[in-house]
Amino acid sequence: MSNAYVLGLDFGTNSARALIVDPADGREIATAVANYPSGQAGILLHPKDPNLARQNPADWLKAMTRCTRAAITAAKKAGEFAPEQIVGIGIDATASTPLPVDAEGRPLSEHEKFAGDLNAMAWLWKDHTAHAEAQEITEAARRHHPEYLAKCGGTYSSEWFWSKALHCLRVAPQVFEAAAAWVEQSDFLPATLTGNTKPATWKRNICAAGHKAMYHADWSLPDAAFLATLDPRLGDVRRHKTYQSAFPSSERAGGLSAHWAKKLDLQAGTPVAVGAIDAHLGAVGAGIKCGSLVKILGTSSCDMMIHPNTQPLADIPGLCGIVDGSIVPGYFGMEAGQSAVGDIFNWFVNHFDKGQRAHEPLAAEAAKLKPGQSGLLALDWNNGNRCVLVDPRLSGLLVGQTLHTSRAEVYRALIEGSAFGARVIIERFEEYGVPVAEVINCGGIAEKSPLVMQIYADITGRPMRLSRSAQTCALGAAIFGAVVAGPEAGGYETVTEAQAKMTGLKAKVDQPNPEARETYDALFALYRQLHDAFGTADSHGSLANVMKDLLALRDKVRGIGR
Amino acid sequence: MSNAYVLGLDFGTNSARALIVDPADGREIATAVANYPSGQAGILLHPKDPNLARQNPADWLKAMTRCTRAAITAAKKAGEFAPEQIVGIGIDATASTPLPVDAEGRPLSEHEKFAGDLNAMAWLWKDHTAHAEAQEITEAARRHHPEYLAKCGGTYSSEWFWSKALHCLRVAPQVFEAAAAWVEQSDFLPATLTGNTKPATWKRNICAAGHKAMYHADWSLPDAAFLATLDPRLGDVRRHKTYQSAFPSSERAGGLSAHWAKKLDLQAGTPVAVGAIDAHLGAVGAGIKCGSLVKILGTSSCDMMIHPNTQPLADIPGLCGIVDGSIVPGYFGMEAGQSAVGDIFNWFVNHFDKGQRAHEPLAAEAAKLKPGQSGLLALDWNNGNRCVLVDPRLSGLLVGQTLHTSRAEVYRALIEGSAFGARVIIERFEEYGVPVAEVINCGGIAEKSPLVMQIYADITGRPMRLSRSAQTCALGAAIFGAVVAGPEAGGYETVTEAQAKMTGLKAKVDQPNPEARETYDALFALYRQLHDAFGTADSHGSLANVMKDLLALRDKVRGIGR
Repeated sequence: MSNAYVLGLDFGTNSARALIVDPADGREIATAVANYPSGQAGILLHPKDPNLARQNPADWLKAMTRCTRAAITAAKKAGEFAPEQIVGIGIDATASTPLPVDAEGRPLSEHEKFAGDLNAMAWLWKDHTAHAEAQEITEAARRHHPEYLAKCGGTYSSEWFWSKALHCLRVAPQVFEAAAAWVEQSDFLPATLTGNTKPATWKRNICAAGHKAMYHADWSLPDAAFLATLDPRLGDVRRHKTYQSAFPSSERAGGLSAHWAKKLDLQAGTPVAVGAIDAHLGAVGAGIKCGSLVKILGTSSCDMMIHPNTQPLADIPGLCGIVDGSIVPGYFGMEAGQSAVGDIFNWFVNHFDKGQRAHEPLAAEAAKLKPGQSGLLALDWNNGNRCVLVDPRLSGLLVGQTLHTSRAEVYRALIEGSAFGARVIIERFEEYGVPVAEVINCGGIAEKSPLVMQIYADITGRPMRLSRSAQTCALGAAIFGAVVAGPEAGGYETVTEAQAKMTGLKAKVDQPNPEARETYDALFALYRQLHDAFGTADSHGSLANVMKDLLALRDKVRGIGR
Repeated sequence: MSNAYVLGLDFGTNSARALIVDPADGREIATAVANYPSGQAGILLHPKDPNLARQNPADWLKAMTRCTRAAITAAKKAGEFAPEQIVGIGIDATASTPLPVDAEGRPLSEHEKFAGDLNAMAWLWKDHTAHAEAQEITEAARRHHPEYLAKCGGTYSSEWFWSKALHCLRVAPQVFEAAAAWVEQSDFLPATLTGNTKPATWKRNICAAGHKAMYHADWSLPDAAFLATLDPRLGDVRRHKTYQSAFPSSERAGGLSAHWAKKLDLQAGTPVAVGAIDAHLGAVGAGIKCGSLVKILGTSSCDMMIHPNTQPLADIPGLCGIVDGSIVPGYFGMEAGQSAVGDIFNWFVNHFDKGQRAHEPLAAEAAKLKPGQSGLLALDWNNGNRCVLVDPRLSGLLVGQTLHTSRAEVYRALIEGSAFGARVIIERFEEYGVPVAEVINCGGIAEKSPLVMQIYADITGRPMRLSRSAQTCALGAAIFGAVVAGPEAGGYETVTEAQAKMTGLKAKVDQPNPEARETYDALFALYRQLHDAFGTADSHGSLANVMKDLLALRDKVRGIGR
């Protein structure tokens, strides 16, 4: 029983996962998942407002306890293992998922006064209620602080920290005022585990700060005076309820508290890393390197790239952020992605394939179709567009239906639409000097759907590779657990060293089929035409109003929004 | 047993119907339907080419025999009736549904040599294989004979006579050359029933001639020299294989032949009216009058209007024809319509509601939604656009999908899209001085779907009325049976007299709901925006290429078309 192990804790959209890893070789000796108990698959919805998506912070702690203990039990069963061999803990979570906390760092949702109040819950990344505020922030920053936007793609998103805080201020001032601090899920969890009850002293992570809150080493968070122009109370949040500095996950947040050590059956004092965003640690767990785009393919996609911080890098419009050190220290971390991928396929199967509600039969039918054969083309904006348009007020589109169009044809068109969206992102990276030689895929869809992988290869023209680990986010978290443990405890000095030992790729590679190229190039040109017509206001004869007007009408009829 | 009765024979897309009517009051004493036995619901399809839709002429005769005999049997059972009381027969059929026949007027499909050859069958109205030829004819007519197009909306359709003959000439020259005549289904059937074996002497109907073949009293069919510019052999068709004059259905085609009298259990010599298009006789059976648009709502829609031929009437662009006397003698008959209505609803239910395949549950859900509530908008072009764009190379479009969009929401959006298409037609009529005060609906959908009727009322802003008869086409045919029988035999001198006695409306009226108006006006403006962007090449920043390029790619991949 001399081995050291590290624990990665991954907080996804619907569940938490614990992964126990041997840092020597990345061997995953045990894992367990626990679903969040509340709402619909862990998400608190509003019956009338499809933009709303909240989460109960208590769910995170319950699920963490269950999955960690289950993983430990499994590890014990699997062989020679004792929980005290765990020498470091890394944590990732979704973002931007901010929540209001009290002066002791407890979520306001735990207060009797706010019981059941959706605005006192965590505002899940996919909550788009703050779309109007995102526009306001974007416009104000364009006028007064364009540098704030330069590193986050040119547009501030409704998914992000300040939009949500500003929206809360307006729709739930009593919650807003009661908050002693606004914190990210990825900061709340390490702070809670380390028993830190002073939010002002929490080590906030640079990943969420830089990608979601316009934090930059040159200026910290945006200026309080600037935020005060949006609302004086937002300036107060900046002054008193946030932070001045942010840190990479290679730093310790602290040691595991006695309370949580007991609950989780671990050793008190075990080093806990500063948190990070799930997709970013997924990129680390997939072995991200220059030239390899790591794609986390789940309900949505996150596309991660790195670029040496010693080399110049342009501001890339439409990206979700370029942050020094947000993925691997010494590199700019870049995040792009699509607001819905698996969510679209699931939506279709759940709503339009009532008899079966299964992907496999549809995928088998769809695999028989040739590119272009259906005459269909889809835009992949059912949940808005995160990159490169950064516009949540876009929606899905399907064109080309005849009276013979089949379910399998639509299903394939949705996959193709998603792949065209992926290609737009790759082309944007390359246009700005970041070559994409291959794509390393992680996540359930990459594992389970060879059809999706082949279509992505054919449409993007890039080989599709698969991360060796099926749970790269948790593995990435474990890697940072190894780094905060340090070499003396069986861990590593640097992330790069840890990656070299602990990550790998599967042998299978989906290569682009050259026969599909001509047709898919032609279809992509049509996709771009629709993309620009519906997505950009400056194309001539633009239809950019159409989706927005439809959503505005819908919201008016439903009586939602401001 | 002193009463006279008349028989209406209605040949629809999937079945034939016989209706026995008392001309004194329009009472329908018996009816029967017989499905066409071949293909898919009577339609011969091509596994690869969704544009192709043919029909076996033998099916018509088989179905006619079955339904006529069944109606007679039912009439006998219902009361005092003997078949010899039937004093006149009227006939309607789909159009343009041309077929090649031999020198005796027999379909070439009956010849051993062409057994199973789809090109020797009847080319069903919804066959769109001739879309390239339609463009050629349109372009040639625009240059040399714009008057040919002026009365048929400005564009010659792929659904129509000359497009199909020209396409046949190219893809099946052996069939083309073997034809002694090209005839419409609505001419073939009366000729067959009257035992006329000389196609050159058949009384061709002005309805199909004027609406589908550019026939006009001023010039007859298009000039042979003009047609020869498209192909010399098409000029030959004009010279030797068609006709010089066309007639209204108030004229007799002849008397029932002994052969068919025996087969149908009727009296030889019974007057048979010249044929007409089903929708046009449907308008007559619905009691069409000035200001009332008669809408035949079935798989597609036909929208019929009349206007006194003593008053000036502009050429209306985008209409399917303005023909003097094609509906009621003394009036210009005008035809408009949508290429797919019920077909779209059925397509959705059959393909995307696998569990139930029924309209009622979806309609019940959809009825609970408010206008605008779904955020969806659909173009109704799954089978192309017949009016006012006259373009078969258009396709369906759905925009506004989110991850929450339900089947019922899509179903309602498809109905709304269809109603917006109906409103475009109404606005076109009014723009050119033909007021539309109300809509008289006929057909299965009008009978069965109050949801469709209410949405049509709300979106068009017109009261929706229902024809009293559930089978107005057959009733219209029976009315012409009464006219060719004449007053001495218990019939009538004029169509108007017959209509006054034999037609009526139901009491129920769907009035437009004023609360829906604002939202639907806003949605209609967005529909128009998409309509013009995808449908018209001259809008700036047009997307008019998109649907066509998708269809061209599809056809290339499938290896269909020229």
